[in-house]
Amino acid sequence: MGFVTFIGAGPGAADLITVRGARVLAHADVVLFDALTDPALRATAPDARWIDVGKRGFARSADQTAINALLVRMAREHAQVVRLKGGDPSLFGRLEEELQALAAAGIECEVVPGITAALAAAAAAQRPLTRRGRGRSVSLVTAMTRQGELQATRCADSEVFYMAGKQLGALPRRLLAQGWAADTAVCVVSRAGWPDQLISQHHIHTLPQATMLHAGHPTVVTVGTAAEAVAVAAPAMPMGPNPRAAGVATVSS
Amino acid sequence: MGFVTFIGAGPGAADLITVRGARVLAHADVVLFDALTDPALRATAPDARWIDVGKRGFARSADQTAINALLVRMAREHAQVVRLKGGDPSLFGRLEEELQALAAAGIECEVVPGITAALAAAAAAQRPLTRRGRGRSVSLVTAMTRQGELQATRCADSEVFYMAGKQLGALPRRLLAQGWAADTAVCVVSRAGWPDQLISQHHIHTLPQATMLHAGHPTVVTVGTAAEAVAVAAPAMPMGPNPRAAGVATVSS
Repeated sequence: MGFVTFIGAGPGAADLITVRGARVLAHADVVLFDALTDPALRATAPDARWIDVGKRGFARSADQTAINALLVRMAREHAQVVRLKGGDPSLFGRLEEELQALAAAGIECEVVPGITAALAAAAAAQRPLTRRGRGRSVSLVTAMTRQGELQATRCADSEVFYMAGKQLGALPRRLLAQGWAADTAVCVVSRAGWPDQLISQHHIHTLPQATMLHAGHPTVVTVGTAAEAVAVAAPAMPMGPNPRAAGVATVSS
Repeated sequence: MGFVTFIGAGPGAADLITVRGARVLAHADVVLFDALTDPALRATAPDARWIDVGKRGFARSADQTAINALLVRMAREHAQVVRLKGGDPSLFGRLEEELQALAAAGIECEVVPGITAALAAAAAAQRPLTRRGRGRSVSLVTAMTRQGELQATRCADSEVFYMAGKQLGALPRRLLAQGWAADTAVCVVSRAGWPDQLISQHHIHTLPQATMLHAGHPTVVTVGTAAEAVAVAAPAMPMGPNPRAAGVATVSS
């Protein structure tokens, strides 16, 4: 009977995996990986069998049962199985169902955390998720319900919406209905941590302008205090996000 | 003029830093580090000058101005300065103030994200922060206000309270006042990611029993769906958290 390690691959770019995650990955016999993980990670375990299970967020939920069954079968046939998930396994990763399947089969496992997209986006945009005196809480939430409905929330000082890239046109109305002011800051980051990451700054009422900019890319949307650019006291110089990264584009609306 | 990289060291254990963070750290001339970072990280940059700025959460806020000034001075004197922060720089790390100080001085910087305690605790306890159909949102919040008052919240499906270790006796009353049911699951994790991590399971009304268990250790408190143990369907086997980790203790009340 094998052992399964769930590893958070981080938001994409291969070097945002943890040192622990990379070390365990290097010893894997089999790796079941998601769509959002960086192909460059294959170099870490070139002799392992890599199986693309193609899941991306909640998009293909019908496949979850098949993934569970494959995970159990691989763990029965191999000593070291890695389940490589985009971001962090504990957030929006269907981890509960895979843990249940392993437990039901009597297979031991561990979880190595990863950088979730909200943290990668905040780092890329240099917009801290908490601000002393103004931002004591941040909520991470998926904008889509299980039934495929768009729902906004306003519970913490800031909200980070996952899997919202296709909803940027519809989101403002839902945000306003929750009591957010129309001029609330919104920061949209796609492909956070990659060389081609894109950061755009908006207010709720101008958010639809972000739709084309980020089309087709994994996107997180931060609303509230955490979306505000860090104010610079005089004597000031302009401070762009991540100035040394190649290919970073920042757009404001 | 030097360049500053803020690096999230993760929740403690040295190997939960990212590969990118470790690589940048290895090239540092100077490292300003917090109390919660693992001394083992020094081996990554043995020739750098390591300066202990001793900050731990919000505990010694009077020193922040001095840290800002030291950071600017070091960046003027050295090419590669690393500001190593426990957890993730963007969460409860006073990052905004340090970014402002650098910007005012015209010093460029970047931010490398890290594993925040909520993610490390969820991984250690094998309790996913989101659950399909039952837990669509999680809020990360400090239980202490800037004025030193204890405040509980109930806004997301689950709440993770940071810097709450000394408040476990007082927290239940505040949680009940926010509308949480007395039998809501609470999971307390201290030293997440370390060999001596401790995980204990409670309900809100039994939470004071956790006080002595976690005394003196960095602690996160998860309340709500995310605190529930993953239910195992028959045929079932008991599944303890992180079964291969040395020294893990799990306690229930």
